[in-house]
Amino acid sequence: MIRYTAQVAVRYAETDMMGVVYHGSYLPWFELGRTGLLKSIGVPYKDLEAAGFFLPVLEVNAKYLRPARYDDTLDIVTTLQDKPLVRIRLTYEVRRGEELIATGETVHAFIDKAGNVVRPPAWVAAKFAEKLG
Amino acid sequence: MIRYTAQVAVRYAETDMMGVVYHGSYLPWFELGRTGLLKSIGVPYKDLEAAGFFLPVLEVNAKYLRPARYDDTLDIVTTLQDKPLVRIRLTYEVRRGEELIATGETVHAFIDKAGNVVRPPAWVAAKFAEKLG
Amino acid sequence: MIRYTAQVAVRYAETDMMGVVYHGSYLPWFELGRTGLLKSIGVPYKDLEAAGFFLPVLEVNAKYLRPARYDDTLDIVTTLQDKPLVRIRLTYEVRRGEELIATGETVHAFIDKAGNVVRPPAWVAAKFAEKLG
Amino acid sequence: MIRYTAQVAVRYAETDMMGVVYHGSYLPWFELGRTGLLKSIGVPYKDLEAAGFFLPVLEVNAKYLRPARYDDTLDIVTTLQDKPLVRIRLTYEVRRGEELIATGETVHAFIDKAGNVVRPPAWVAAKFAEKLG
Repeated sequence: MIRYTAQVAVRYAETDMMGVVYHGSYLPWFELGRTGLLKSIGVPYKDLEAAGFFLPVLEVNAKYLRPARYDDTLDIVTTLQDKPLVRIRLTYEVRRGEELIATGETVHAFIDKAGNVVRPPAWVAAKFAEKLG
Repeated sequence: MIRYTAQVAVRYAETDMMGVVYHGSYLPWFELGRTGLLKSIGVPYKDLEAAGFFLPVLEVNAKYLRPARYDDTLDIVTTLQDKPLVRIRLTYEVRRGEELIATGETVHAFIDKAGNVVRPPAWVAAKFAEKLG
Repeated sequence: MIRYTAQVAVRYAETDMMGVVYHGSYLPWFELGRTGLLKSIGVPYKDLEAAGFFLPVLEVNAKYLRPARYDDTLDIVTTLQDKPLVRIRLTYEVRRGEELIATGETVHAFIDKAGNVVRPPAWVAAKFAEKLG
Repeated sequence: MIRYTAQVAVRYAETDMMGVVYHGSYLPWFELGRTGLLKSIGVPYKDLEAAGFFLPVLEVNAKYLRPARYDDTLDIVTTLQDKPLVRIRLTYEVRRGEELIATGETVHAFIDKAGNVVRPPAWVAAKFAEKLG
């Protein structure tokens, strides 16, 4: 298991007229979480794309438990449970201190420039193996 | 069952550097779908909020099957299967002609200004009953 | 002079906690206006990019005169005054019926894939000449 | 003169299919800059709204000099030159190390809940006077 915590301060642009954070604004936060996690194990997503690999989102799920508000400081706790083969599944918790604000999950595949599903490049597989056994 | 089809033309702003639509851009489209459906049965969401009721998103799921691209014209087909009591569940299909691009689901609750979960107002329940029996 | 009117219905996602449209949400509307104008004279922006030309925004100005609100139907009136050479300048009016909500202006350059400023391709120049003399 | 530097790491969501940051993504960064500046002098924007005052954007200008890219770390340098009376004018520089990426300017008014233009509350005027003489 790999776990990584990113922090965000809620932007005014991320709220809507309900006075709280727009539900769609959480998806870029999940993204911050997973790219932070990948970078933390030596796999900057930018390098992955530069090498011709992409990790598009195939599936996203989010559950909203409590409203987040403008200027809140939130922890985005991202977890990668299993060594990814073709697919990679990440889970997310959005926390404000002890309070759980939202949970989420994304599923991705490694694809190449032509859009074909591929195994992760060797250097990436090595990084995952190093951390996840 | 109530079904409503909204149409969107993909905006440049909705794409990302992968060259296709950003996965988060689908959530505002689902919203267009459900507010269109509600309006089509005589429940403009604006009036709902003016009457002190809100329908926050409690849960969202999306599956991305094929990339959508800039300037595509897409159908957002929204379905309300069951008469909502406290919760309301909607499903979505994003289509480009015959091609299914993505599917989704959202779950909502009626809440009042204080954030308490409530039953929908009588005039709204009547509209749902009229269409869903 | 070329003028084109696009219509938008304000999305919930485009509002913020001030209860009105977020000021940044107008920029994608200007974009709808200008790509609509270009398409109306036979220059779909998609084809321009497919041909290896881009029209990045070099400058944007917006003045907000009255708030726009969720579910408003707005006209985005876009005007191209002069035949573009290397730069292209467009102006915008956002209207709700007779009310002027906002005005704007964008300046663009034609660039090629390498990012160099270039003249518009011949077929595009011909379209502009046809309409602007 | 008051100057404040905020830092942002470019999000994938902030890019578009041109492969660089979408021009509209800079506006939330300017916002981070100015709310950071206000907080740095003891005027959290959240408290301003809680006290019934708002600072809507009346005007925004931006000039894009060089593309910003995914994962760039950028400085948003915000400057308040003059003590605000009814209007407040801020300028912005977006920098990637020594490189100037973009410049901008926003103009705001203090308004009350009814939307009337008002002078800033006394405690806010005092903070500005303390820093700007």
